[in-house]
Amino acid sequence: MVRNKQVILKNYSSAVLKETDMEVVCGEVLLQLEPGSSDDVLVRNLYLSADPYMRHRINGVQGSYIPPFTPGQLLDGFGVSKVVMSNNPNFKEGDYVSSWTKWEEYSIIPGGKQLTVVDPAVCPLSYHLGCLGMPGFTAYVGLYEILKPKKGDTLFVSAALGAVGQLVGQLAKEEGVYVVGSAGSQKKIDLLKNKLRYDAAFNYKEEPNLSAALRKCCPRGIDMDFENAGGKMLDAVLENMNVFGRIAVCGMISQYNKGEKDGVTNLYNLINRRITMRGFLQSDFIHLRPKFMELMSKYLKANKVVYIEDFADGLENAPAALCRLMKGENTGKQVITVAKE
Amino acid sequence: MVRNKQVILKNYSSAVLKETDMEVVCGEVLLQLEPGSSDDVLVRNLYLSADPYMRHRINGVQGSYIPPFTPGQLLDGFGVSKVVMSNNPNFKEGDYVSSWTKWEEYSIIPGGKQLTVVDPAVCPLSYHLGCLGMPGFTAYVGLYEILKPKKGDTLFVSAALGAVGQLVGQLAKEEGVYVVGSAGSQKKIDLLKNKLRYDAAFNYKEEPNLSAALRKCCPRGIDMDFENAGGKMLDAVLENMNVFGRIAVCGMISQYNKGEKDGVTNLYNLINRRITMRGFLQSDFIHLRPKFMELMSKYLKANKVVYIEDFADGLENAPAALCRLMKGENTGKQVITVAKE
Repeated sequence: MVRNKQVILKNYSSAVLKETDMEVVCGEVLLQLEPGSSDDVLVRNLYLSADPYMRHRINGVQGSYIPPFTPGQLLDGFGVSKVVMSNNPNFKEGDYVSSWTKWEEYSIIPGGKQLTVVDPAVCPLSYHLGCLGMPGFTAYVGLYEILKPKKGDTLFVSAALGAVGQLVGQLAKEEGVYVVGSAGSQKKIDLLKNKLRYDAAFNYKEEPNLSAALRKCCPRGIDMDFENAGGKMLDAVLENMNVFGRIAVCGMISQYNKGEKDGVTNLYNLINRRITMRGFLQSDFIHLRPKFMELMSKYLKANKVVYIEDFADGLENAPAALCRLMKGENTGKQVITVAKE
Repeated sequence: MVRNKQVILKNYSSAVLKETDMEVVCGEVLLQLEPGSSDDVLVRNLYLSADPYMRHRINGVQGSYIPPFTPGQLLDGFGVSKVVMSNNPNFKEGDYVSSWTKWEEYSIIPGGKQLTVVDPAVCPLSYHLGCLGMPGFTAYVGLYEILKPKKGDTLFVSAALGAVGQLVGQLAKEEGVYVVGSAGSQKKIDLLKNKLRYDAAFNYKEEPNLSAALRKCCPRGIDMDFENAGGKMLDAVLENMNVFGRIAVCGMISQYNKGEKDGVTNLYNLINRRITMRGFLQSDFIHLRPKFMELMSKYLKANKVVYIEDFADGLENAPAALCRLMKGENTGKQVITVAKE
C-alpha cells in the first residue's frame, strides 16, 4: 500500500481556467494486480503531458471528438510511465512505456491498452510527450499532409514556441521554406530565432498592429499558415495571405480560455485570394505514424530538430501548469514531472 | 448622333450603398467607328448584369482580384448586346453577343475583346448573364470542383434564390443530394420549394435562431455548404457541419454592405469536425467553361433547371437595382433591361 496523489476535476470552467477548478487529493493504492485481471498493467507515471486540447474537456461540451472530463473524476492524458507489475505478455516490470494514463502517481492500464514500450537510451523520456508524441505528429501531419510545403514558400506559425509550433518551423526549414513565427515573450522570440532556425519572429503582445507586424516579417506575403492561435491573429493572417494560400487549422488557443470569443472579420479574403483553410486532427492520419517516427528520430539524431520543454515539478503543481499553459506562460512543451528516477 | 445614357460612379461607399453614390447622365454618341480603329465593335447594350462582386469595386479597395471603379467614370460589367457596326471579322451587324461592356446604351468594345456570339433562338438572351453566364459557371465550379457532391449528402445553400444559389441546388438534386436553402422572403422560400426542387428552405429573417433552423431543416447535418452569405449565417452553419464537411466560399453578401463586419466566432469547429473551407473564383477554372455550357444547356432544354430573373427597366433604374440587390430585395438574378428589341 503506497501513497497515490491524484488530480481531480472539481468543476467545469467556462472562461479562464483556475487552479481551483481542479483538486489534488492524496489517496492510497495497493501495488498489486489481481491475478484474474487478464492483460492489465500497473504503471508508475513519470511524466504527464499538459496539452491545450484538454481545455475543451473542462468545458463540459458534448459531441466533440473527445468526451469531456467528469467532475469528481481523475484527469487523463498522455504520459510516460514505468511498468511496476504486468499481467500482459507484451510488457514486463521495468519497461518504460508511452501511455494513455491518468493524472496520478500509479495507474492500472486495463488490458495494457495504448501502451508502447520506449527506449530510455535513445532520447529523454519526456520527448514521447512532445517531439516524438502527439504534438510532434500533429506538426508533421499539418505540415506535410495539409500545407504541403514547396521550396521558397513563406510559412507563418502562431504560438510558434508551443509543443507543436516549434517543430513545424524546424521541419519546414528542411524543405527550404522561409519560416516566421509569433509568440508571447522576448525569451520565446530569442529561442525561435537563435535556437529553432526561425527566419523571423515577433512578440504579439508588443505589437500594436498584428497585420503590420506580419507584413514586416513576411515581405513576400504568407503562402502557408499553421494556425495555432485563432481570433485576432487569424484575422491579421487573412490580410497577409497570398493568392492560393493554404491554412492548416490546428488550434485556436487564444480563444479557449475566454467566455466571449473574438469574431474573425476578414474571411472574405478566402474568396478574394482563393485560400484553402482546413482543420485537422492528427488522429485521422495514424497510418503515417511510423513514417513520422522515422523522420523525427533521424532529425533529432542529426540535431536538425531541437526541442524546448518546460517542466512542472510534481502532481501538486499540475493544475497550475495547465492554467499557465492556457495563458501562454510556459516556454516550450509543458510537461509535468510526477516522479524522477 | 444618338442619345447615350450612362451610369457613372459618383463616390466610393463604405457602408450601405446608396443610389446617390451613382449618377445617371445623358450624353450623346456618334454611331460610327473610325475606319482605322482596327477590330473594334460598336454595340447596343440590351441587358446588363448587376452582381454582388461589383459592390467591392465601389469600396475603392486596391489589391483585389479586380480593380475598383474610378469615381467620375462609367461602371462596367457583364452584358448582352447587339452589334451595330463592326471592324472585326468575327462579328457582323445584327449579331447578338454576350459581352464585357459598360453601363450605357451604346459601347465601343476595343478590339472586340470578350465578345461571344450567342443565338437568340436557343434561350432568353438574358440567360447569358445568369444561368449560362458567370453566375451559372460559379455554381458549376463551386459544386463540382470545390464541394464534389456524393449521393446522399446534405447540401446547404445560403442566398439560395440568388443568381448562383438557385442553380447550385438544382444541379445538386441531379446528383442525388438533399438540398436545403435559406433566403429572405416567403416568396423566395415558396419558389425554392415549389419551383427549384429544394427539399427544405427557411426565411432567415423570420428565424430567431439560425442554428436551430438549420438543425431542423438538415436532420442529418450538413455535409456541404455553398456559402454565399457569411457572417451570422456562416456561424450557424459551422455549428451544424458534419465531420469531414466541405465549405465552398463563394460570397459573403451579408457583409458587403455594412461598415462594421460581423465576426465569425465558431471557426473552432473547423478543427473539431475536420472541415475544409475553400474560397474560389470561377475565373480560375475557365478551361471548364465548355463542359459547363454543355451540361447547363442540356439541363435547361430538359427542364431540369429553371431560372428565376428579376428585371429592372431602363438604365435610369440601374443604380436602384444595384442597391436593391445588396439588400436582397430582388427575387432571382438581377438584370437591367437597357433596350427591348
